[in-house]
Amino acid sequence: MSGRLAVIGLGPGDARWLTAEAQAELADADALYGYGPYLDRVPARSGQARHASDNREEGARAVAALRHAAEGGKIALVSGGDPGVFAMAAAVCGEIEAGPPEWRALDIAIIPGVTAMLAVAARAGAPLGHDFCALSLSDNLKPWSLIERRLDAAAKAGFVIALYNPVSLARRWQLGAAFDRLGRHLPATTPVIFGRAVGRPDEHIEVAALASAKMVTADMATLVIVGSPQTRVLARDGRTALVYTPRGMAGIDA
Amino acid sequence: MSGRLAVIGLGPGDARWLTAEAQAELADADALYGYGPYLDRVPARSGQARHASDNREEGARAVAALRHAAEGGKIALVSGGDPGVFAMAAAVCGEIEAGPPEWRALDIAIIPGVTAMLAVAARAGAPLGHDFCALSLSDNLKPWSLIERRLDAAAKAGFVIALYNPVSLARRWQLGAAFDRLGRHLPATTPVIFGRAVGRPDEHIEVAALASAKMVTADMATLVIVGSPQTRVLARDGRTALVYTPRGMAGIDA
Repeated sequence: MSGRLAVIGLGPGDARWLTAEAQAELADADALYGYGPYLDRVPARSGQARHASDNREEGARAVAALRHAAEGGKIALVSGGDPGVFAMAAAVCGEIEAGPPEWRALDIAIIPGVTAMLAVAARAGAPLGHDFCALSLSDNLKPWSLIERRLDAAAKAGFVIALYNPVSLARRWQLGAAFDRLGRHLPATTPVIFGRAVGRPDEHIEVAALASAKMVTADMATLVIVGSPQTRVLARDGRTALVYTPRGMAGIDA
Repeated sequence: MSGRLAVIGLGPGDARWLTAEAQAELADADALYGYGPYLDRVPARSGQARHASDNREEGARAVAALRHAAEGGKIALVSGGDPGVFAMAAAVCGEIEAGPPEWRALDIAIIPGVTAMLAVAARAGAPLGHDFCALSLSDNLKPWSLIERRLDAAAKAGFVIALYNPVSLARRWQLGAAFDRLGRHLPATTPVIFGRAVGRPDEHIEVAALASAKMVTADMATLVIVGSPQTRVLARDGRTALVYTPRGMAGIDA
């Protein structure tokens, strides 16, 4: 069995956050699989087949890429951001476990990338400078009560919280409910960062206080970061404010 | 004031995880600042000054870079991994807040990178495929009791946990104590991933069960990921196991 499947993180936005490794893997692949808009970000190369699929078809896309790899050849499955964070890498592992034994013999490579919260954080300053967590607000799989429990735990313990999948066409009330829930534990002034379409021409970064965060529009392309009580907003004349969470004094691990 | 300071994430390991943006910023800088081993990873360019400093001098390094930027010119401050995750970006923001007003007028750019937990996760499979948190085990600043409270909260709420700064020359017992603490909440079989020197020639990835994790050697170059009760280890004949945390069924946000 000589097949190889590389699950490749493109980073968010355009090619600025593509790594050298991801670029080399993309150039080397016989065929590409992925959600259409992600595939569109990869320059065309003659002789390289492209299989675009819909956003909802995560499992089917993983199966198709694994089947193709099992026939031999070098297959690339592209993912936005980092493939390991709420994205394709776990889906591929799950399909390997559920699939035919020969899929376990495939050469599987996960190629990391810049995940959305890192790019949004960079645009805002350094809100993830201290302990933080990443939580998907999608209750398509997990019950909303579990999401509430995780929001409570994270806020009470002082983690900064990055919210992935805050909103979708079918999930419109969850983000507001999450802000309400966090408001039980966090000061009304806690900074909340909305990073929309980061790294794309229509990028928009907005910072609001938790108490008024429900007034800010978020959509499927938005990543939300809710600060901790330690997170600071540093105003700057003529420049956007810097939002950061102090790491503290320089120590031996600086 | 025309000075610019770019705080640049090199990613962990060698140049494979350097982004196109980071590469361009490095090439464009008049002077580079950073911890010596990180600076050594940047190809030399004639006319570009280099100011290496010790690991412990985080605050002083930020101040030196800000001072230089305030004199005009394009300064790059390099950081391993992502500068926003337990690294230089928050230190720079803190020094700007504490420093002279003119520093607030500087053009500050944070250039994101692949942070260590993403690279280690990619090597192991997809352990960060569902809700997770990142926690520094350094008690140089925060009290150990707070770290325990965060470990408790994260484990009880079902987050996968990435541990940064697990060990240093001066902090030898903390990682074992953290495993003991997590063992109160998590099954003894919970997979623990040790990623040492990821992306370097001496890279070493090891997976152990939580109950025996204290037997594994970790050092300052190690990043540890502790699974959740949902994290799975998928054995493969002739290949390393894949460790992953299922994201679940394909949904509208896949």
